[in-house]
Amino acid sequence: MMESYLDNSATTRVDDEVVELIKKLMTEDYGNPASLHRKGFDAERYIREARDTFARLLKCKESELFFTSGGTESDNLALTGAYMANRRRGNHIITTKIEHPAVSKTAEYLEKEGARVDLLDVDDKGHIDLSQLESLLCDDTVIVSVMHVNNEIGAIEPIEEIGDLIHKKQPECLFHVDDIQGFGKLKPDLKKSHIDMLSASAHKIHGPKGVGLFYKSERTKLTPMIYGGGHQNGLRSGTENVPGVAGFALATEKMYADMDESFRRAEVLRGTFMEGISDIEDIRINGGDMPYIISLSVKDVRAEVLLHALEDEGVFVSAGSACSSNKPAVSATLKAIGVEPWQLESTVRISLSHHTTEEEIMYAAEMLHKTIPQLRRFTRR
Amino acid sequence: MMESYLDNSATTRVDDEVVELIKKLMTEDYGNPASLHRKGFDAERYIREARDTFARLLKCKESELFFTSGGTESDNLALTGAYMANRRRGNHIITTKIEHPAVSKTAEYLEKEGARVDLLDVDDKGHIDLSQLESLLCDDTVIVSVMHVNNEIGAIEPIEEIGDLIHKKQPECLFHVDDIQGFGKLKPDLKKSHIDMLSASAHKIHGPKGVGLFYKSERTKLTPMIYGGGHQNGLRSGTENVPGVAGFALATEKMYADMDESFRRAEVLRGTFMEGISDIEDIRINGGDMPYIISLSVKDVRAEVLLHALEDEGVFVSAGSACSSNKPAVSATLKAIGVEPWQLESTVRISLSHHTTEEEIMYAAEMLHKTIPQLRRFTRR
Repeated sequence: MMESYLDNSATTRVDDEVVELIKKLMTEDYGNPASLHRKGFDAERYIREARDTFARLLKCKESELFFTSGGTESDNLALTGAYMANRRRGNHIITTKIEHPAVSKTAEYLEKEGARVDLLDVDDKGHIDLSQLESLLCDDTVIVSVMHVNNEIGAIEPIEEIGDLIHKKQPECLFHVDDIQGFGKLKPDLKKSHIDMLSASAHKIHGPKGVGLFYKSERTKLTPMIYGGGHQNGLRSGTENVPGVAGFALATEKMYADMDESFRRAEVLRGTFMEGISDIEDIRINGGDMPYIISLSVKDVRAEVLLHALEDEGVFVSAGSACSSNKPAVSATLKAIGVEPWQLESTVRISLSHHTTEEEIMYAAEMLHKTIPQLRRFTRR
Repeated sequence: MMESYLDNSATTRVDDEVVELIKKLMTEDYGNPASLHRKGFDAERYIREARDTFARLLKCKESELFFTSGGTESDNLALTGAYMANRRRGNHIITTKIEHPAVSKTAEYLEKEGARVDLLDVDDKGHIDLSQLESLLCDDTVIVSVMHVNNEIGAIEPIEEIGDLIHKKQPECLFHVDDIQGFGKLKPDLKKSHIDMLSASAHKIHGPKGVGLFYKSERTKLTPMIYGGGHQNGLRSGTENVPGVAGFALATEKMYADMDESFRRAEVLRGTFMEGISDIEDIRINGGDMPYIISLSVKDVRAEVLLHALEDEGVFVSAGSACSSNKPAVSATLKAIGVEPWQLESTVRISLSHHTTEEEIMYAAEMLHKTIPQLRRFTRR
C-alpha cells in the first residue's frame, strides 16, 4: 500500500544525512564538550560550528544563541525567564488566543505567580489586530509573545509590524516569537522585526527530537530555569546534546538551502490538493497562509473517524494540533477564528514538508474522495 | 597509537545496538507519540516500553517515572519542583558539600527564593555523618538531597541509612538521590531506602546525550518546571524524545544484565591499575569506594598539564569533575574531604566503564610512569 505521511507539523522523519552525522557523534566524536582533552575539544567544536551556522542563517551573534531540549523548553524559557528577570519593571504579558500550549499554559502558570495576561483576538483568518495590541501595550508590559505561524491553520502573523509597533510604543518591552512552525520555511528578520527572543525546534524540520533553539538579543535579561555546571554562559546548564545540536544545524542548513523553491513547491502541491478535493461537498478550509498546513473541515464526519479511515489507506494526518498530549481537546485556534460549531469536531490537519511529493498529495486527495462518502453514509442516513 | 578513553564519568561512547535502535526510530518509527494514528501509536509504544523497562529494573510503578533532557534537568526538577510544591510546609533543604553543581547551584538559587539550605560535611573518605543529618532534620525540612556516588572521588553515600533516618525522624520530608554516577552500576533500592526522587542520565552509561530519567514516588507532589501540551501527566511537557528514551532504556537494560560482573571486573581493573602505579612516588588516591572512579593526586604536577601530556599519548582523563563548564574551578569535593593544598591543583580523575579493558588500564598506568617524571623535571629542579 502507498504511504503518505502528511503529519509533518507534528513531527518529521529525520533526514538521512542528519542521521549519519548523529551516528558519527555518538560513536566517534562522542566526547563531553566540557572535557579539557581533545575528545572534549572536538565535541565542543561541533557545538561552536552549529552556533556559527545558526548565527549566519539568522544573521545574529553566536552569543545570542542557546540550545535547549526542544521548542517547549524554549518557549518556557522565553516567558518564565524574561518574566522573572523583569518582575521589578512590570507584570503585564500580552499574547494571543491561538498560541501553542507551550506559550499559553506557561502564561497561565505565570498568571498564578502574579502576572497580568491579556490574550489578543484574531480575525477569521487567524490574524491578530495591531490596533488591539497598541491599545493594550502599556508601561507595565514586559513581554509580548506572538507565534510566527499557527500550528493548526497555518496563519502567518504580521511579525514585522508587531515588532515595529512594540519598538515605537514600548521600546523596553520584549518581543518573543514562537517560530516552531515557521522556522526553516520562512526567514524571520530578527533585527527588522525587533525580535528579542525566538524559539525553534529541530524535529519539525527533519532534525532529531529533543533539541530546540533559543535566540535572545543582547539586551534581553533572563533568569535561567535550569541550574548546574554553568554551561551556555550560565543560561542553560547541562551537558550539551552534541549529536542533537549538530544534527539540528545540518537540518536547518538544508532547509535554508532549499527554502524559496520548497515554498513554491508547497504552494503548487497545495494547489494540486485543493483542485483534487474541490468537488467534495460540504468541506471548508481554515486559515491557509502557509502552504505547508491545510486545515480541512469535513461536515458530518468526526475528525478522529476520518483520521482512522485515512490511516487504513496509509494516509497520516492529524486531528486538531496533535502535538499536545493525547487527549484531543476543543481547539482554541478554531474557536478563536470563529468557525461554525460543527467544525470544532470535524477538522483535520494535513501538513506538508520539504520532502512531500506530488504523488503523496494526489493519493491523499484520492483517499479523501474514497473515505468521506463512506463515512457520511453512517451519519447522513 | 593506542587509545585509552578513561573519562567515562564525563561521558561515554554510545553502545552500537543503542545507536542502531536510535537510527531506526529516527527514520522508520519516527512518529509523534501524541499523534492519534498508527505512526503516533508506534512511537508511543516505545515510550511505554521504555517506562516498563525502567519500572521493572527499578522495581517501581510506570506512573512514577518521567523522562527529561538529562541529569541536570532531573536534579533541578527534584529540588525546585519539590520546593515550590511544598513551600507552605517548610523552607528547609539539606544537602551536602560534595554535590554536583546541578544540585548545589539549584540549592543556591532556591536560597535566593527564600529557602534555608544546610550543607552536610563529609569525612576524609567523602562520607556524610548521619548524626549531623539527624541534628539538622527538623519540622521545616522539606527536602534532603544526597548523591549516591560522588562524581570526583567515587565515594558511595549510605543511601539506605539516610533514607531510614529521614523516614523515622521526619517522615514527611522528601529524600532525593542524585544517582547520575551510580545508575546502572549499583542497584538503588527505592523502597528500602525510602527514596522519593531519583535522577539518572543516559550518556553516562553508553546511552545518548540529552536524555534523563526522573523517578518520583507516588506521595511526592511537584510543581512542573516546563509547561505546555501536558505530556507525561502534566509534569513535563514537550514532545518526548522517542529515540533518546528508547535508547536510554536499552542502554540501562544492558548495564543491568551485566552489573555484578562488571563491578567485579572494574575492581580487578582498579587493582591492576593501582599495582601498575604503586612505585610512582608522591602520589595519593582520594576516596575510592567505586572501582569505576580513581581520583589521583600527583605532587608537583598540575592536573591540566598531566591531562595534556596523557592525551598526547592517547589517554583521556579529566581534571576535576569535568562535567561542569569549561573553566576548571577549585573542587568543592576535594576541599570538603580535607586534602592537602597541593592536591587541589594536582588531581586527575580516571574513570572506567563497563567497556574498559585491561589493556587500556595497563597502557594508562604505563603512560603515567612515562609522563610524570618528565613533567616533574620542570617543577623539581
